[in-house]
Amino acid sequence: MSRTLIARPLTAQAFAPFGQVLEATGDYRLINAGLCRRFHDRAQLDFGPEGRAGISIFHAEPRALPYAFDLIERHPQGSQAFLPMTQNPFLVIVSADPDAAPQAFVTAPGQGINLNRGTWHGVLTPLHAPGLFAVVDRIGATANLEEHRYSQPWTVLAP
Amino acid sequence: MSRTLIARPLTAQAFAPFGQVLEATGDYRLINAGLCRRFHDRAQLDFGPEGRAGISIFHAEPRALPYAFDLIERHPQGSQAFLPMTQNPFLVIVSADPDAAPQAFVTAPGQGINLNRGTWHGVLTPLHAPGLFAVVDRIGATANLEEHRYSQPWTVLAP
Repeated sequence: MSRTLIARPLTAQAFAPFGQVLEATGDYRLINAGLCRRFHDRAQLDFGPEGRAGISIFHAEPRALPYAFDLIERHPQGSQAFLPMTQNPFLVIVSADPDAAPQAFVTAPGQGINLNRGTWHGVLTPLHAPGLFAVVDRIGATANLEEHRYSQPWTVLAP
Repeated sequence: MSRTLIARPLTAQAFAPFGQVLEATGDYRLINAGLCRRFHDRAQLDFGPEGRAGISIFHAEPRALPYAFDLIERHPQGSQAFLPMTQNPFLVIVSADPDAAPQAFVTAPGQGINLNRGTWHGVLTPLHAPGLFAVVDRIGATANLEEHRYSQPWTVLAP
């Protein structure tokens, strides 16, 4: 038996329990002789006592809605930011804990996310090719992955 | 009297003296059950002894070629990565030092850059709207900007 959830448009308010929406909205500083708006220091980065920040590039296969999944994961040692290198929407799945119902969001063009350290989330799920992202996450020598597999899959439906 | 330089396509090799090209090429790790390629830890991040990493969003006015400039700048305390949130090319201007001739590159879709700490560079110059970038740079309380104004402007010509 599959359980369903409906993807919602991503907003900073709805996403606040899980992390930050990284987008060009709200307060900014004008730099470069007024030609650039700097929306300053928007992510709560946390790479733990033994980690450091790194930038990696992810290239993921696009998925389609409805999208079925039975796995979520988290990184107990670090935050993880997904910065799309396209204007294509992507699907964001998060959960307060494995026993709670997960939540699904669809991004708008110009929206990235930062997952707070230890936040349960689905794997990277672009909705269009190319599924290209810059990822800012923890580089470190110790284990940083926990997985949870649901006894029944969830299916995400379009908004 | 204006001096000219010709923008070249951005390559990792040509850019190596200044920083790293962040793109989905070369070695990768397969993650997420084989559905995602992770091009791991591609940037030489360095935020100095008193800084930390931050993610900001930049929204810059698009420019056009030929593009004239008379200012370069550098951040002595930290590296700075520009990760386009679109597939639009942007212009990258760098210089070994203020007395050397600057160099100009045009990116391809899917290319970001990381400027090594202390690298002289032009201001952010997207070539199309929206000029949206995620920027990973130093957050800190101490001064981190030096500027150099050329006595004569440079003009960047299309490749």
